[in-house]
Amino acid sequence: MQLVKKGKTKDVYQLENGHYLLKFKDDVTGEDGKFDPGANSVGLSIEGVGRAGLEMSSYFFDQLNQANIATHFVKANLDEQTMEVKPAQVFGKGLEVICRLKAVGSFYRRYGEYIEEGADLPQFVEFTIKDDERQDPPINAEGLMILNILNDKQIEQIISLTRQITSLVAKDLAQHQLDLYDIKFEFGLLEGSEEVVLIDEISGGNMRVYQGDRYIEPLELHRILFSK
Amino acid sequence: MQLVKKGKTKDVYQLENGHYLLKFKDDVTGEDGKFDPGANSVGLSIEGVGRAGLEMSSYFFDQLNQANIATHFVKANLDEQTMEVKPAQVFGKGLEVICRLKAVGSFYRRYGEYIEEGADLPQFVEFTIKDDERQDPPINAEGLMILNILNDKQIEQIISLTRQITSLVAKDLAQHQLDLYDIKFEFGLLEGSEEVVLIDEISGGNMRVYQGDRYIEPLELHRILFSK
Repeated sequence: MQLVKKGKTKDVYQLENGHYLLKFKDDVTGEDGKFDPGANSVGLSIEGVGRAGLEMSSYFFDQLNQANIATHFVKANLDEQTMEVKPAQVFGKGLEVICRLKAVGSFYRRYGEYIEEGADLPQFVEFTIKDDERQDPPINAEGLMILNILNDKQIEQIISLTRQITSLVAKDLAQHQLDLYDIKFEFGLLEGSEEVVLIDEISGGNMRVYQGDRYIEPLELHRILFSK
Repeated sequence: MQLVKKGKTKDVYQLENGHYLLKFKDDVTGEDGKFDPGANSVGLSIEGVGRAGLEMSSYFFDQLNQANIATHFVKANLDEQTMEVKPAQVFGKGLEVICRLKAVGSFYRRYGEYIEEGADLPQFVEFTIKDDERQDPPINAEGLMILNILNDKQIEQIISLTRQITSLVAKDLAQHQLDLYDIKFEFGLLEGSEEVVLIDEISGGNMRVYQGDRYIEPLELHRILFSK
């Protein structure tokens, strides 16, 4: 088992069967010791975050598989904090897709002249390029095509998948009286295929969730979802 | 004649015939005393810039009228540095439309991981919201619709007009061995009408122009175009 990459919140190993193993760490992105799913650097380490993120990701990946939405997920091992995934190629050097249901965070910081903080949004989808040095710049559909990151068909597919997955997650959270404000995904092409699949993870670290007016931190979100 | 607004590069007066009079000033946008058409603040004052911008705008507005592309332009008075325009309503609180033919400026700063500086772009169009406080944030088509700034038909019209006008300007400049790298426009709705028209100005202060490898400042551009 060979280490391929040390990531901000996960390390990646290559397995002998051609799959990859993602080792979930206890690091979360944030700034000044405060968790922020949109931040670019590891802001703090929280014990149990890795295991919680893995359990939540497995839970949602299972639901997506049942809904016939393709992902890279194969299986998870909670005790070892690892997830086995099929090999997939990211788009360009990595792309993030954000779906926003409420005007908060960077959306509100940009467009606050036009909308109230916290106002409902109709599943607004936007793309950002993963590029720490350039602070993950946003990019529009035409830019994605000009830079050969996505073609028009892939853009349509990804927007459609993003909305389906967001709906699924939001519905699940609503059963616990939780409101999904926004969520961030990564997609890729399954190796040797043209199929667009969800990769990375679906965990508290990639979404903003509220209960009423109260922001729910990733570990608390995990407790609400998985404690009986 | 009543002063309506003091702008960064132009003051606006209301005329008794219902039209407006734009008074072109010698101020240009920039930072640290260096001209930058994308900057948000007045960086420096250059004698003659106002008159040059007005002459160039009139020159291109005339060409656009001949090409049946609607603008707010009525007539110009070079000696008084004024342009009479029809009343038009901006979209939202003001919107800028940028058409890029070369990967320079903020495009290259954002996407330099994917493209060489100065590479050709196929008339890449992007929108930014005029909002000095928020540094003119970029916005994609869906965002423009969600925030009720433009509808889908207006977005299509504006992108099409932007490309037509950019082609016209680039062709004209090419006759003087000048290369247009990017250009910025504003559009609006003619008062009492649903017609999308070009407003503001088309001058050296709104575009980046090169001759070979050499950047051509607005005043030099004016000299090249209008000296016989």
